[in-house]
Amino acid sequence: VRTGRGEVVFAEGKKTEHLLEIVEVFLSRGENLLVSRVREDQLGPLLERFPRLVYHAEARCCTHVASPPPPCAHRVGVVTGGTSDVPVAEEAAITCEFYGVGVERVYDVGVAGINRLLARLEEMRSLRALVVVAGMEGALPSVVAGLVDRPVIGVPTSVGYGAALEGMTPLLAMLTSCVPGLAVVNIDNGFGAGYLASLIARL
Amino acid sequence: VRTGRGEVVFAEGKKTEHLLEIVEVFLSRGENLLVSRVREDQLGPLLERFPRLVYHAEARCCTHVASPPPPCAHRVGVVTGGTSDVPVAEEAAITCEFYGVGVERVYDVGVAGINRLLARLEEMRSLRALVVVAGMEGALPSVVAGLVDRPVIGVPTSVGYGAALEGMTPLLAMLTSCVPGLAVVNIDNGFGAGYLASLIARL
Amino acid sequence: VRTGRGEVVFAEGKKTEHLLEIVEVFLSRGENLLVSRVREDQLGPLLERFPRLVYHAEARCCTHVASPPPPCAHRVGVVTGGTSDVPVAEEAAITCEFYGVGVERVYDVGVAGINRLLARLEEMRSLRALVVVAGMEGALPSVVAGLVDRPVIGVPTSVGYGAALEGMTPLLAMLTSCVPGLAVVNIDNGFGAGYLASLIARL
Amino acid sequence: VRTGRGEVVFAEGKKTEHLLEIVEVFLSRGENLLVSRVREDQLGPLLERFPRLVYHAEARCCTHVASPPPPCAHRVGVVTGGTSDVPVAEEAAITCEFYGVGVERVYDVGVAGINRLLARLEEMRSLRALVVVAGMEGALPSVVAGLVDRPVIGVPTSVGYGAALEGMTPLLAMLTSCVPGLAVVNIDNGFGAGYLASLIARL
Amino acid sequence: VRTGRGEVVFAEGKKTEHLLEIVEVFLSRGENLLVSRVREDQLGPLLERFPRLVYHAEARCCTHVASPPPPCAHRVGVVTGGTSDVPVAEEAAITCEFYGVGVERVYDVGVAGINRLLARLEEMRSLRALVVVAGMEGALPSVVAGLVDRPVIGVPTSVGYGAALEGMTPLLAMLTSCVPGLAVVNIDNGFGAGYLASLIARL
Amino acid sequence: VRTGRGEVVFAEGKKTEHLLEIVEVFLSRGENLLVSRVREDQLGPLLERFPRLVYHAEARCCTHVASPPPPCAHRVGVVTGGTSDVPVAEEAAITCEFYGVGVERVYDVGVAGINRLLARLEEMRSLRALVVVAGMEGALPSVVAGLVDRPVIGVPTSVGYGAALEGMTPLLAMLTSCVPGLAVVNIDNGFGAGYLASLIARL
Amino acid sequence: VRTGRGEVVFAEGKKTEHLLEIVEVFLSRGENLLVSRVREDQLGPLLERFPRLVYHAEARCCTHVASPPPPCAHRVGVVTGGTSDVPVAEEAAITCEFYGVGVERVYDVGVAGINRLLARLEEMRSLRALVVVAGMEGALPSVVAGLVDRPVIGVPTSVGYGAALEGMTPLLAMLTSCVPGLAVVNIDNGFGAGYLASLIARL
Amino acid sequence: VRTGRGEVVFAEGKKTEHLLEIVEVFLSRGENLLVSRVREDQLGPLLERFPRLVYHAEARCCTHVASPPPPCAHRVGVVTGGTSDVPVAEEAAITCEFYGVGVERVYDVGVAGINRLLARLEEMRSLRALVVVAGMEGALPSVVAGLVDRPVIGVPTSVGYGAALEGMTPLLAMLTSCVPGLAVVNIDNGFGAGYLASLIARL
Ligand SMILES: Nc1ncnc2c1ncn2[C@@H]1O[C@H](COP(=O)(O)O)[C@@H](O)[C@H]1O
Ligand SMILES: Nc1ncnc2c1ncn2[C@@H]1O[C@H](COP(=O)(O)O)[C@@H](O)[C@H]1O
Ligand SMILES: Nc1ncnc2c1ncn2[C@@H]1O[C@H](COP(=O)(O)O)[C@@H](O)[C@H]1O
Ligand SMILES: Nc1ncnc2c1ncn2[C@@H]1O[C@H](COP(=O)(O)O)[C@@H](O)[C@H]1O
Ligand SMILES: [Mg+2]
Ligand SMILES: [Mg+2]
Ligand SMILES: [Mg+2]
Ligand SMILES: [Mg+2]
Ligand SMILES: [Mg+2]
Ligand SMILES: [Mg+2]
Ligand SMILES: [Mg+2]
Ligand SMILES: [Mg+2]
Repeated sequence: VRTGRGEVVFAEGKKTEHLLEIVEVFLSRGENLLVSRVREDQLGPLLERFPRLVYHAEARCCTHVASPPPPCAHRVGVVTGGTSDVPVAEEAAITCEFYGVGVERVYDVGVAGINRLLARLEEMRSLRALVVVAGMEGALPSVVAGLVDRPVIGVPTSVGYGAALEGMTPLLAMLTSCVPGLAVVNIDNGFGAGYLASLIARL
Repeated sequence: VRTGRGEVVFAEGKKTEHLLEIVEVFLSRGENLLVSRVREDQLGPLLERFPRLVYHAEARCCTHVASPPPPCAHRVGVVTGGTSDVPVAEEAAITCEFYGVGVERVYDVGVAGINRLLARLEEMRSLRALVVVAGMEGALPSVVAGLVDRPVIGVPTSVGYGAALEGMTPLLAMLTSCVPGLAVVNIDNGFGAGYLASLIARL
Repeated sequence: VRTGRGEVVFAEGKKTEHLLEIVEVFLSRGENLLVSRVREDQLGPLLERFPRLVYHAEARCCTHVASPPPPCAHRVGVVTGGTSDVPVAEEAAITCEFYGVGVERVYDVGVAGINRLLARLEEMRSLRALVVVAGMEGALPSVVAGLVDRPVIGVPTSVGYGAALEGMTPLLAMLTSCVPGLAVVNIDNGFGAGYLASLIARL
Repeated sequence: VRTGRGEVVFAEGKKTEHLLEIVEVFLSRGENLLVSRVREDQLGPLLERFPRLVYHAEARCCTHVASPPPPCAHRVGVVTGGTSDVPVAEEAAITCEFYGVGVERVYDVGVAGINRLLARLEEMRSLRALVVVAGMEGALPSVVAGLVDRPVIGVPTSVGYGAALEGMTPLLAMLTSCVPGLAVVNIDNGFGAGYLASLIARL
Repeated sequence: VRTGRGEVVFAEGKKTEHLLEIVEVFLSRGENLLVSRVREDQLGPLLERFPRLVYHAEARCCTHVASPPPPCAHRVGVVTGGTSDVPVAEEAAITCEFYGVGVERVYDVGVAGINRLLARLEEMRSLRALVVVAGMEGALPSVVAGLVDRPVIGVPTSVGYGAALEGMTPLLAMLTSCVPGLAVVNIDNGFGAGYLASLIARL
Repeated sequence: VRTGRGEVVFAEGKKTEHLLEIVEVFLSRGENLLVSRVREDQLGPLLERFPRLVYHAEARCCTHVASPPPPCAHRVGVVTGGTSDVPVAEEAAITCEFYGVGVERVYDVGVAGINRLLARLEEMRSLRALVVVAGMEGALPSVVAGLVDRPVIGVPTSVGYGAALEGMTPLLAMLTSCVPGLAVVNIDNGFGAGYLASLIARL
Repeated sequence: VRTGRGEVVFAEGKKTEHLLEIVEVFLSRGENLLVSRVREDQLGPLLERFPRLVYHAEARCCTHVASPPPPCAHRVGVVTGGTSDVPVAEEAAITCEFYGVGVERVYDVGVAGINRLLARLEEMRSLRALVVVAGMEGALPSVVAGLVDRPVIGVPTSVGYGAALEGMTPLLAMLTSCVPGLAVVNIDNGFGAGYLASLIARL
Repeated sequence: VRTGRGEVVFAEGKKTEHLLEIVEVFLSRGENLLVSRVREDQLGPLLERFPRLVYHAEARCCTHVASPPPPCAHRVGVVTGGTSDVPVAEEAAITCEFYGVGVERVYDVGVAGINRLLARLEEMRSLRALVVVAGMEGALPSVVAGLVDRPVIGVPTSVGYGAALEGMTPLLAMLTSCVPGLAVVNIDNGFGAGYLASLIARL
């Protein structure tokens, strides 16, 4: 994307040599760069050739910040219920930070134990927007949107099996939420959620 | 069903005259009878011909109890989030009562306002089993099962539009719940949930 | 919804008498009220009994504003491609206005004639957030998000036939947009989009 | 799951080192532990580091019982039609036993040879609840529920090919059973069925 | 269909006047004629204009046999579980009879009460082929095919609601049957099953 | 299956050692045996341990005929359009032959070159039943059923990509054929089609 | 569409008064006009107010040709298998003629009786492009494309029931055709096919 | 395909030795040959044995032109939005060239940056037909068809994840385009699109 806010490369589907070429071009232009969804086999060649890149293991991203974006007065929350959704949550968080927006991580607060969520309510209410990541039945964004009066961006994940339909079930569930204030991005699309949240935070 | 626990007739798809014949047969045998899903156009002829039948308007059922079932020591809870799901919840409740099991109605406690749910937690924990009815994203059964250590029977409803897919979305969501202690019946199947709950209550 | 920002009633699935009761309660409390998706047969009884209600024909909504919300410095855009999507677009627009946020209507700018869209680019760039409504192949939100650096809320509609799958096709298409900055609400959910846009505008 | 009834870890999606850490924590707290869906590559490291763990090969589970649960007066049946569904059935059975509930295994009694099923009817009728596991067309739970007056928990499996749709077909079939007394859990979810059955047995 | 075995007209989707014209043509040629799926509003005009037609109410068919087909030594069974599937079963039965093949009706023998089915086993084993009609979970054809060593033609019906998916669930279930000797026709396609059964009976 | 007509083992999903045990049991009983869907890695151990087994490479089956079935007066046709569907067609053919029914192979006669099909019409008309195997759009069974007055068993295959939906498209297409005389089995189920065809041939 | 080739209005989803306004505008500009999918209740008001409009009953279209398009040297074929698909075929044919391209109608040549199709082969080969309309299993476009070396535009229709899935089955079948030279438009979209065919004919 | 215009072999699903045999036959006949979807492991053996074959790496095709097809006066455009869809686009382009039709490649002009597309408008308008390749939301063919008055063949690709449903989403989106002049081929079917485009170019 030519967002004027830094370049982004989606590594997963690319051949390693092709990826290296693209990264070469962007780095040589002195631009900020986010490389998302880096496959395990791409990581070695990438870091070896471009030692400037910082690797974020949980988020499976590499970033290089040539010139830091202007500071942002507001912070964004990234919320998730269990440990399995953390990679997608981290992709969202690293994306926000790449665009210069600070992140509050509110992890391990799923509906199976709602008290942990209630304990962090005040914190969540102080943030500008919330990215809520959930797989399986995808109930968390609804519950959060019912408790907090901020824009909520739901990210369904492909975590789960059987009737989870590789993420279609939480996706559909978030879309039919009976609570307003919530919109949804594609399955596992932490990048998209983080991008939108940072756009809102910078308004 | 020849359940040995009273006869049940599903009225919705039947021609009125055919329905009257079937009801005639069962009543003449002196059996307890539950007629579920009575259509508006069937109601007049049914009540006129069989004044013994009691009509439960919200549940769209008629019952006749010739000989009351033996008393049951335990009670069942029927839980729902909004007013739209009440007809299905009432079908479940009337079914339990038809089989001689007392019902606690816990209505209007959806995830959009989770405090109303938390306020009735003790009550729910005192019951033998819980029928939880929910349309749209179907998050309520998960939330209840996370808070209460009792068998939960989830009933998805066809309430909602678009991505609710006529109830497939809450159905799939309940099936992929990350909370154990929950099983699911067909969309809008209040009868099936009430039957199973009464079976559990009588164990 | 108990949003603390005015009450909202979804009329479509409700019996008229039940609807009148609910509206009665909210109006008697002196609250701002939005009644969405009013069916044709509900309209007469509703306006007759509550002459205070203002009817918005295209949006199929009634509103009553007891105490105007505080003014909002920012405006929201509502964008649509053809005439068929206007009812959903108007539902979004009326919702924004109900919450005190001004709306710029950018209608009839679909991808079949992209020049009309390009002609209104500057206007769109001056707004705080954009609600983009589209049925059929649902391409418009992507195109808008590619041109404007603002949060875009996509609303798929059930307009179309055959492979449009009653709105599932534009819904899926918007979710898989290759342009970031876009999140999606349920099919035909103008209210949800308007609510979220007004939340963003008021940040 | 924090069930207060022993801890449960779902191994399949976890990195081995992460799994070992979690197991370490729970064992060090002296809690009962069930590790389900252990992958082949996780098994060696797991048993080597925690020799206390007991491995149940068919069920692909490990358990450690620090303090046995209180005895339970009632038993649960686990029923399956062929050899392919045995792993899921065993997951249910081991889960029941982990929670201190005895299990009667009624295997190899599918609809292709209904006499084997009829031969074990009395035995099934003496149990508190039945977990019935079936793939392909998923007919067995209906047939069992028609013959036995006990709560039946249906578990569809992903066994089969083509129109079995990786378990969606038996799932849908069980949900639309014309026999009441049956509720359903997710595809291959032996754990969920065993958990619910043990909850019912302990009522 | 120009089957060389008598003409068949599918009435349901046709305008009455167009239907009358087609029937006129075929009758004037002196051919045997089966008019299937006659709508209620088509019935009056049809019988009034062609008094030769015999109406089969349950099957919603009209037939005219100008010259009886040659006698067939073998009989076909038509099997169904409940009363709701009888119209489709009768369509199959009348089709067989139209082609000169005698039919044994084995109705009301569903899986909810398997003894009624077992009671008629010998009878079923004496027939040349079996048409087995079932809605909801569609288990009956599997059960029959497991008990009887004859070709079984499964007919799924659209009877049921929710997860029955208007007949897709019994269709998929029959296709994935673990019992061989069974093939399937389209949802509600009693005619197709009867045609194929008569073809087999006449071999 | 205990068909009384020889034992059948479905090898694909089984562990090799488990498969060897089952085959051991059946061979030691002196029964005819068909092992279908033998995986490449299972083949070596299987043939080494049981040199009596005959391997049919295209069909991916092994058979052992201890006592030949009684001769059958009639033959069955197995028809297919291209080379990709041959493995499924061969599975059907070998199954027929295993049950003692002779097979006419009519291969490479797809709708892309309809003349090759027309050239073999007389031959097809002389057979007792036809198994027609087709992937992609699945048109061949309809075309054959329109030309030949014999029972046709359609076998959809998973050959194809994209909109072929792993065989669901030819499956649905065959089911909605506008030509009668055709019934369908599961995707890739050559065994099921061959079994049913041999059942018909032996009537 | 502003095609520069005449205006087109899709009447079906429009309110009658709104439709009359639009038609008024276009006619007053002296443009050629095609009004497609005219509902029965719209027809009277439309023809009464604009007697210039010519109604094409089978195609459910009205046209007004103010200035005839330039003549076209080539003709297009419109092919269909049965009578049920004729309305969609006529929509395509009238659309071609509206754009000044002559049409050869090749109706009632379905795969159930392939000889009627073969009889008209030479005629089809003489045309510039072929629109082939088919419901149910949608086999006809493949068969035609296999026989004729011209661009074929497949139009699936919603004719059929059950597994025809309201036209999705023929749509998917046409897309997976094993014959090249064929592309597909939306279900029932006779207009789209006719438009494209006329575009090709005029090249 | 026996197109009379050169032979085509689809390599992907074939065993290498089987592929070599087929290629041998066609080359020995002196025919033009296109081998599409060559897998990496097939490439070595293929080129080693048949050094005459020219390999097109991006398109994953091999061609051998024994006798060049007659020259074609018209050119075709192949259009695509990003780098990920290039392999499918190249398959279409090489196919056109194989049939003797010149190709204009218009790559990297997606909706995310619509100016690059507008810059090449004149060029596109000068071509005979356009193949437009797009994955994810599949909006590009609509946008192109709205701008250019030429036949557009849309090719959806399986590029994308989650709600892209392996290409079903762009497929459905293209089919429901609100712009006429567009027809669609199967997911990733560059060959089919190129074939049809060359057929049109040669009219
Ligand atoms: N993790 C991600 N998920 C979804 N979209 C992404 C992701 N990372 C990058 N993108 C999008 O993909 C585009 C880059 O795609 P590409 O040009 O193929 O590398 C970016 O502009 C982003 O819009
Ligand atoms: N509301 C309901 N929803 C689902 N199943 C029902 C309902 N009411 C009755 N049934 C089932 O339908 C059976 C009666 O069906 P029928 O014989 O068609 O009247 C009963 O045995 C119940 O198992
Ligand atoms: N290739 C096949 N496709 C479908 N079903 C098969 C096949 N081979 C065997 N079967 C069925 O699977 C049963 C054996 O399954 P199993 O006991 O798991 O080996 C047989 O009775 C057949 O009904
Ligand atoms: N029968 C039809 N089927 C599909 N699309 C149509 C049909 N008739 C008109 N259209 C398209 O719909 C557009 C007009 O839509 P509207 O502006 O809503 O009347 C035309 O430009 C055509 O592209
Ligand atoms: Mg909120
Ligand atoms: Mg619980
Ligand atoms: Mg943007
Ligand atoms: Mg029972
Ligand atoms: Mg049998
Ligand atoms: Mg035939
Ligand atoms: Mg052709
Ligand atoms: Mg155009």
